[in-house]
Amino acid sequence: MAVDLTVDSNEIAFEALGLPGLEALASLTAHARTLGVPVILDAKRGDIDSTAAAYASAYLTGGRLAGDALTINPYLGMDSLEPFITTADDTGRGVFVLLKTSNSGSIDLQDAPLASGVPLYRHLANMLAARAGTMPRDEHGFTALGVVVGATHASHLAELRSVLPRSVFLVPGYGAQGGTADDVAAAFDGNGRGAVVSASRSLTYASGPVGGDPTGAIDAARGAVVLMRDAINGAIARR
Amino acid sequence: MAVDLTVDSNEIAFEALGLPGLEALASLTAHARTLGVPVILDAKRGDIDSTAAAYASAYLTGGRLAGDALTINPYLGMDSLEPFITTADDTGRGVFVLLKTSNSGSIDLQDAPLASGVPLYRHLANMLAARAGTMPRDEHGFTALGVVVGATHASHLAELRSVLPRSVFLVPGYGAQGGTADDVAAAFDGNGRGAVVSASRSLTYASGPVGGDPTGAIDAARGAVVLMRDAINGAIARR
Repeated sequence: MAVDLTVDSNEIAFEALGLPGLEALASLTAHARTLGVPVILDAKRGDIDSTAAAYASAYLTGGRLAGDALTINPYLGMDSLEPFITTADDTGRGVFVLLKTSNSGSIDLQDAPLASGVPLYRHLANMLAARAGTMPRDEHGFTALGVVVGATHASHLAELRSVLPRSVFLVPGYGAQGGTADDVAAAFDGNGRGAVVSASRSLTYASGPVGGDPTGAIDAARGAVVLMRDAINGAIARR
Repeated sequence: MAVDLTVDSNEIAFEALGLPGLEALASLTAHARTLGVPVILDAKRGDIDSTAAAYASAYLTGGRLAGDALTINPYLGMDSLEPFITTADDTGRGVFVLLKTSNSGSIDLQDAPLASGVPLYRHLANMLAARAGTMPRDEHGFTALGVVVGATHASHLAELRSVLPRSVFLVPGYGAQGGTADDVAAAFDGNGRGAVVSASRSLTYASGPVGGDPTGAIDAARGAVVLMRDAINGAIARR
């Protein structure tokens, strides 16, 4: 299946609500898991070794806040990612390293041209590919080490799919932020696997702003998900 | 005063304990504030605009988790930092942007040599200096836009103090991680102001591992803080 339903911890900005928000996130996560829905915590954590290990414990393996996968920030370097990668690998969970994000400001550091002739994001991709090359693969050839590449960068998706054949891509920016089905098709491998395309506002608010009929909202969200899935599968088939 | 006491949200890894840990953090933060102790939340947050604004609301202005300052991660670019900077400026709080961190892996991205001839951290420092140049200053010439530069990089501290005269430096890595008083002296301006030197393990565990006599632990921590303060002030005076 090219499109998975996931719980996106970010869209509703649970943390902005403080402790009650985090309680709500824990409840939603638990409920999603009883339904078999994978939970990707888009928390973008990153810290030095001992703290990274503590975050990995909280969000990947232990307690009520843990999900199936976590997004992580690479600015501190490979040693800061290692506790997350190791934990994910050991426990059957996953991580997605921020590589090329969907916002316009991503050019400031991620696209900075290096003396070696490549942009910074490509230098990071090479390091991640080397690490993924050492890791066990699932039946489709993928490791626990995934990356985040925005739907708003179609040419980067094709380039990075080739550099990182063992990584699942988490692709935000579909829909409201401007990414199309044809843009994201390049994130999938030759078998139509290896990418999770994320849409938030276009699904959450498919029936209009918050406050309307919740029954209508469910049907509208389901309809928007099916349209999105079919559009992406169509674009993959046309490649 | 060259050395401030702060509450470091990271050292005890409150988040690793999940919701009870965050409750404990909120209680400690509230208690510190009743004592007039500044709270720097070393949470290293970073996300796109709307989510960044939500984090800024949670950790700088609203609710029980809010502190006096927050560390933030620049990998997503300047537009991702802007909601934090604006919120801090508007509310009399502060942010510290991760610039050159104390861990050895910080060379992977932060020291990557750019085609322009400078390392990535210097490119970021130039962008932050331009932003700080537009901001109101306090009576000592500092803005709400600070940076994190590790105590383990003495030569970078001197370079960056010159590039960022309007930024307070948060300097981790003193003590257990290897930074000395002479190393960190370069983080302070000509008046001996503008830096917060952070030590965690060397103070928290000054009396030995957790589990000993708490009265002894308090005295040992106080003694270690005074020694650290005097060592740094001595190093500043010797410059």
